Amino acid sequence: MSTHKVVFEPHGVTIEAAHGSNLIRLAMEAGVHINASCGGEGVCGKCRVIVEEGMVDDGISEKLSPEDIEKGYRLACRSVVTQDVVVRVPVESSIDASVLNLVRTPRKAAHVHQPDLEHLKEEGLFLPPVEKRYLELPPPDAQDRLPDVSRLVGFLKLSHDEHRLVVSLPVIQKIPDVLRQEDFKVTATLSRPVHPGRKTHIINIQPGDTTLRNYAIAMDIGTTTIYGQLIDLISGEVISEYGDFNGQISYGEDVITRIMAAEKPGGLEKLHQVVIETVNRIITKIVKQSDVAMEDINAITLSGNTTMTQLLLRVNPRYIRRSPYVPASTIYPPIAAKDIGIALGNHVTALVYPQISSYVGGDIVAGIMGSGMYRNESLTLFLDIGTNAEIVVGNKDWMACAACSAGPAFEGGGIEFGMRAAKGAIEDFSIDPVTYEPMNLTIGNVRPKGICGSGLITIVATFFELGIVNSQGKYNRDLATDRIRERNGSYEYVLAWQADTQIDRDISLTEIDIENLIRAKGAIYSGCQTLLEEVGLTMGDIERIYLAGGFGSYVDLEKAMIIGLLPEIDADKVTYFGNASLLGAKMSSLTNKIRQDVVQVTNMITNFELSETPSFMDHYVAALFLPHTDLNQFPKLKARLDNRRKA
Amino acid sequence: MSTHKVVFEPHGVTIEAAHGSNLIRLAMEAGVHINASCGGEGVCGKCRVIVEEGMVDDGISEKLSPEDIEKGYRLACRSVVTQDVVVRVPVESSIDASVLNLVRTPRKAAHVHQPDLEHLKEEGLFLPPVEKRYLELPPPDAQDRLPDVSRLVGFLKLSHDEHRLVVSLPVIQKIPDVLRQEDFKVTATLSRPVHPGRKTHIINIQPGDTTLRNYAIAMDIGTTTIYGQLIDLISGEVISEYGDFNGQISYGEDVITRIMAAEKPGGLEKLHQVVIETVNRIITKIVKQSDVAMEDINAITLSGNTTMTQLLLRVNPRYIRRSPYVPASTIYPPIAAKDIGIALGNHVTALVYPQISSYVGGDIVAGIMGSGMYRNESLTLFLDIGTNAEIVVGNKDWMACAACSAGPAFEGGGIEFGMRAAKGAIEDFSIDPVTYEPMNLTIGNVRPKGICGSGLITIVATFFELGIVNSQGKYNRDLATDRIRERNGSYEYVLAWQADTQIDRDISLTEIDIENLIRAKGAIYSGCQTLLEEVGLTMGDIERIYLAGGFGSYVDLEKAMIIGLLPEIDADKVTYFGNASLLGAKMSSLTNKIRQDVVQVTNMITNFELSETPSFMDHYVAALFLPHTDLNQFPKLKARLDNRRKA
Repeated sequence: MSTHKVVFEPHGVTIEAAHGSNLIRLAMEAGVHINASCGGEGVCGKCRVIVEEGMVDDGISEKLSPEDIEKGYRLACRSVVTQDVVVRVPVESSIDASVLNLVRTPRKAAHVHQPDLEHLKEEGLFLPPVEKRYLELPPPDAQDRLPDVSRLVGFLKLSHDEHRLVVSLPVIQKIPDVLRQEDFKVTATLSRPVHPGRKTHIINIQPGDTTLRNYAIAMDIGTTTIYGQLIDLISGEVISEYGDFNGQISYGEDVITRIMAAEKPGGLEKLHQVVIETVNRIITKIVKQSDVAMEDINAITLSGNTTMTQLLLRVNPRYIRRSPYVPASTIYPPIAAKDIGIALGNHVTALVYPQISSYVGGDIVAGIMGSGMYRNESLTLFLDIGTNAEIVVGNKDWMACAACSAGPAFEGGGIEFGMRAAKGAIEDFSIDPVTYEPMNLTIGNVRPKGICGSGLITIVATFFELGIVNSQGKYNRDLATDRIRERNGSYEYVLAWQADTQIDRDISLTEIDIENLIRAKGAIYSGCQTLLEEVGLTMGDIERIYLAGGFGSYVDLEKAMIIGLLPEIDADKVTYFGNASLLGAKMSSLTNKIRQDVVQVTNMITNFELSETPSFMDHYVAALFLPHTDLNQFPKLKARLDNRRKA
Repeated sequence: MSTHKVVFEPHGVTIEAAHGSNLIRLAMEAGVHINASCGGEGVCGKCRVIVEEGMVDDGISEKLSPEDIEKGYRLACRSVVTQDVVVRVPVESSIDASVLNLVRTPRKAAHVHQPDLEHLKEEGLFLPPVEKRYLELPPPDAQDRLPDVSRLVGFLKLSHDEHRLVVSLPVIQKIPDVLRQEDFKVTATLSRPVHPGRKTHIINIQPGDTTLRNYAIAMDIGTTTIYGQLIDLISGEVISEYGDFNGQISYGEDVITRIMAAEKPGGLEKLHQVVIETVNRIITKIVKQSDVAMEDINAITLSGNTTMTQLLLRVNPRYIRRSPYVPASTIYPPIAAKDIGIALGNHVTALVYPQISSYVGGDIVAGIMGSGMYRNESLTLFLDIGTNAEIVVGNKDWMACAACSAGPAFEGGGIEFGMRAAKGAIEDFSIDPVTYEPMNLTIGNVRPKGICGSGLITIVATFFELGIVNSQGKYNRDLATDRIRERNGSYEYVLAWQADTQIDRDISLTEIDIENLIRAKGAIYSGCQTLLEEVGLTMGDIERIYLAGGFGSYVDLEKAMIIGLLPEIDADKVTYFGNASLLGAKMSSLTNKIRQDVVQVTNMITNFELSETPSFMDHYVAALFLPHTDLNQFPKLKARLDNRRKA
């Protein structure tokens, strides 16, 4: 893809832009503030810029007079970069100009993990658990009366060095007719044992040569969303993928309400059925998208948290929410997919990721395996942030984990205008440090409806760094802006006036919202700290951070460090794995090595119950500040703040 | 049970009789001929005897005048022995008296095998494949948060030295609630691996102590009849048993017609369903009889011939009847009973006996295992005689087998008045060598309806030994009796005149019937001979004979040797195992040793296809005589015949 050079004046900032980039997003990325209230829909008309050299596409709006347009004014939010341009952000006062000299925190998103199939192949680890073998068997005659199954198994032994083969009844039922369909030329599907030396199962037999048709499904059973991928086991590529809301949502948003629903008469069966319906709907979708025959799907791997896993498997989860909080099992045996109602062939075995404890489940184990954390030499902090945050710390030799309830703030819960990361959510933000006018960018470039998790972090971090809120999360009441105001006895900052929104009210961020965010980040940070302390380490020992969860992809790492959600660490050492649970499910479809290692890894992980670790509460209380009562834990931020105070 | 002494005069034969014995059966057993046409119903009135000392119960009939009764006349067939008696068989002429001096062939039934449970226990082989363990688990608390399954498995390891445990999903689904039902006191049901060192499956979990309730089912899937036994795995005893016709009978009497029915559209599914219905009916019956809870039935073993096995497992049997006659498989994996529709708990695994070839099936393998033939040092001939006869020869080091089509003669087929061994079948027979009047004994002591297999052998052997038929099976046309007559161009002997039967015709045995019997016994004998020859042995090398099949129990061994069905061997060396298939199924419920050995034994057996062994036809043609063209193969009989000829 071609790139273009975009220069922002008077800042003198240059940024390399992909062809077709949105200009206001480029400005945000470059750390250039442009007032913008309406999220990028072109309604507020505030994001006027002058194109001085070259020209952008679009950018025209009724908010611009023909004269303005003639002069080169465009709305940044509507402008598309298709050539090199020089763009001037109008500076309407000398006060404004002063901000140009401020050192802005560079925006730093985590490096997004890209699975490296070639690397897997080079290391000899591309070992899908299901393989196919094409066989031209000698037909039986009067001198060779081997039974059909013995003929097949014997040939695999002699000609393909396959040993310890098991044939299950459904395959035996097919063998006599299939062998004779194309004159004893058949393809056998072999399911590898998890442990080398154990038995290989012949799970299917097909007439002719079908060796190039071999697929698996990976699925993440999230409390909210279920994602499925169809994987080509020959190429290793994901050929289709689909996500859908977990049908259980109507029985409660979180695991606790789901467990309560399961405890009602018939509830367990109902919740089990509902999640299986979603699973099957996703399977239908990804199979249809890819035009793959059902019969050629030979494996499925599923991962989910402990409650989701137990509901998926119809195992009563009631003791998960009752002291002393024990799950039914950590490890589940391979299961015939059909036995739990999954609409795949009878020959398909479902592998379900093992659990660690009631609140650190198979999704986390899948993340550990899929991210490769369990093979790391360096000390890694793995964080999966959602309503519950799961924390794993360790390396290839040892691991410890814990879960803490972060509350729903990062998913928009408990925040007055909070929302999930959906169209209309303010996801990025900047503020003019003089006028305190905002630059709101929304998902989908439409007028804002609310604020999502990553937006919330960026807003609060920006406020804190510029002194708009203090370390207790309270607004500075003395600032000269009508955007900070009192309502219902609490202060708030108005991000967007009603006219610039999709809703019938101003969108604001209240001190109560900030308090909730501080509680959430405080729980996570103190959880990490407590866990590290339990194993004799401190935040400073962490060499890598692995982020997982729908939450993490758009989070500005520096901002997350400013609010004290993440410990300060070089952003290069942070990797974002997105849906690590799905990644783990996928990886174990591509390499049997993970399936071999997972039980050992699971058994190696020590689970800590934070609620019963006395120091947790102390750490938590200390973390209920921006970024923390102990600013020395954030030395870079401390330096910047000191710098600014001097300036 | 008390016994009584019964003396038959003028023969001077004394026999020990169980209290309540039937007098005419005692006479047959003692080799004393008493004319009797009506099978023992008391209708013909021919079996008059005089009780000279003591008295019998009953024996009174309208066929006897008050004077006769006064003189001590009784009908032998109606008389019950309840004390010592001396009975005189009226000899009404000196001609009759001469027969008293004839040396009669003593009647010799095979020793009937009695499974010896104590012996099994002494040898340490009483190892039921399913065991129960009562466990008092420590409940979880804040210091011990082991998941439920780990708690159970860990306790079994530590406290019961149980290792390599596997828990399947249905058990995991039960564990959380069952553990808490009686305060973590539970009974775990352990299913042992077939091979030591493999995994033990925890197949069930029950609250409290249920260790004394542990049962298994053994079942023989016969083409005609299915027998089931419910076995107490604590005592090793059969606690209930039931047999019923295989519901497939309406689709054809033999395996070939069943295969043809299975080839019709939907036929395989239908035949499968029908046999499963019978299996489930029998299970219901034996469970009801015994008052055992379904949940405590933990295993089922099934054995049947190759076609019955494939239909049971819904494996297309069409290639069994098509050259080159290959079965689908020899060995079948353990199968969840529910997966083939068997109405037992989800935790029950069905073990199905392996097959050797298309016509030597799991019923024979079960017979080999159940009879212990595979552990014998001495050379044993195992014969299972039905429509098809299966022959196994060998010892613990090697075995060879073959099947031959005997035709249905031994089951009453192809015999004009032939019938199965049911009420009204002539099952035993003697003839007055002077008057040629018969002594017919029927099953149930009722007027005859026909002749069953054992009756047929005895009649033909008796005829042959007394010269009533010659070695070609033709009646002596010169005898002074109206019972031998010509009808429809063939000679026959009238066993019972119409008035003495239950049917509307005379019951006779024709030369065509005898020819069919000779063909049947010729096929079996020559099959044995061919098989022995193929392995370099002769009939003379045989040290033991094991008889199996519904046919064998009532067969007079000496008679079977006279007609040339069995080789001449000391009757003590013949053991009758009855339903050896059922015995094998039962034995593998009692001792895991058999399940361990069976695959190796099956692989050790060499199958011979008689139809493609050139010498078979020569042996067969030579065997189409009574007893054989080569009388030297039957030296004892030869001696007796020579003796008689001299007399």
